[in-house]
Amino acid sequence: MSRTRIHNLSISLDGFAAGEGQSEETPMGHAGQRLHRWMFATDFGTRMMGGDGGSTGVDDAVAHRHELGIGSEIMGANKFGPPGWQDDPDWTGWWGDNPPFHTPVFVLTHRPRAPIEMAGGTVFHFLDVPPAEALVVARDAAGGLDVRIGGGATTAGYFIAAGLVDHLHLVQVPIVLGRGVRLWDGLEGMESGYDVEVVSTPSGVTHLTFTRRAE
Amino acid sequence: MSRTRIHNLSISLDGFAAGEGQSEETPMGHAGQRLHRWMFATDFGTRMMGGDGGSTGVDDAVAHRHELGIGSEIMGANKFGPPGWQDDPDWTGWWGDNPPFHTPVFVLTHRPRAPIEMAGGTVFHFLDVPPAEALVVARDAAGGLDVRIGGGATTAGYFIAAGLVDHLHLVQVPIVLGRGVRLWDGLEGMESGYDVEVVSTPSGVTHLTFTRRAE
Repeated sequence: MSRTRIHNLSISLDGFAAGEGQSEETPMGHAGQRLHRWMFATDFGTRMMGGDGGSTGVDDAVAHRHELGIGSEIMGANKFGPPGWQDDPDWTGWWGDNPPFHTPVFVLTHRPRAPIEMAGGTVFHFLDVPPAEALVVARDAAGGLDVRIGGGATTAGYFIAAGLVDHLHLVQVPIVLGRGVRLWDGLEGMESGYDVEVVSTPSGVTHLTFTRRAE
Repeated sequence: MSRTRIHNLSISLDGFAAGEGQSEETPMGHAGQRLHRWMFATDFGTRMMGGDGGSTGVDDAVAHRHELGIGSEIMGANKFGPPGWQDDPDWTGWWGDNPPFHTPVFVLTHRPRAPIEMAGGTVFHFLDVPPAEALVVARDAAGGLDVRIGGGATTAGYFIAAGLVDHLHLVQVPIVLGRGVRLWDGLEGMESGYDVEVVSTPSGVTHLTFTRRAE
């Protein structure tokens, strides 16, 4: 049974998943790296940046689940590039020649373009369709594996609100960002129907996992 | 050194400390008891309600600190009574003849009235002054002990934003309330200047303590 999953979605105490003022120079706006420092300290995050020597505790184990059993990803336009990337025909994402996805990736945008085949198995496809429709396409491309909703928070929120997410992993970082892209709007009562587990770790973050209860 | 402390301030994942629609029948609005179930399950909370047999683990130990070393409390008008209590000359708070404070309590309201002396050492005083001024009065009444800011969230937020709080204990409950009285507005960056500790417990809540760093 192919599931729809969200992993490593980091939010501030006040529920922001990115800061204000996102640009090519400041992809997370005024949040800087503060929301993801916990991840870049892990073996998973360190390797993603081409290094090694990261931590191998619970933060790392949980972060690494991002990779496991995923056959395709759906991401919002705001994750693929800074505001205005649609005007740059040469933009191929933040991640260089060999992006860390290694699957088909479906980018939701009102200005779709032709697919881009990258090294390492990542192929970016561009879709101008509602979330539920994108999920059908991504599921089909996943070859029986799970579909990851890669973010950002607005896209994740759409899928959660629509009841399409089977597994949600949030990481709460103990900072108050004050402004930016907020996750929680429109999600009142979203916890119902999920088993919820909450675990804090020595890095100071709290992992919240929502797993859809069997009917 | 007398400190200013906040304890057991329970908030939802989206930062609401009370629901929408607060009234005499529904003091926490549509949140019901969901924000405080963790506390009513503890020995501390059970005794507060006149019972016994509550849990005696970490939730209880942390909840109980609410009582220790406190010489007076400041609370907002919304904690003292439901909307409109100022129109009822007989309203003496939610807590019966012997309220669980046992110290002077300063209620911030634009419509002050004469002090009310209750059983068990609680005296309600009513002040129409800014937070910093109320703190001077409450500190003086605390006899060298600490001053507790009793809430609600709006009042707590005022004192936190003004830099007047030395110790803040939040309890995050894994529910999304969607609407109500929000804590975080205006508190961007409030974590700076504090040592922050984050600990989840088996009840599913997360205790966050902010302790002002020595200068």
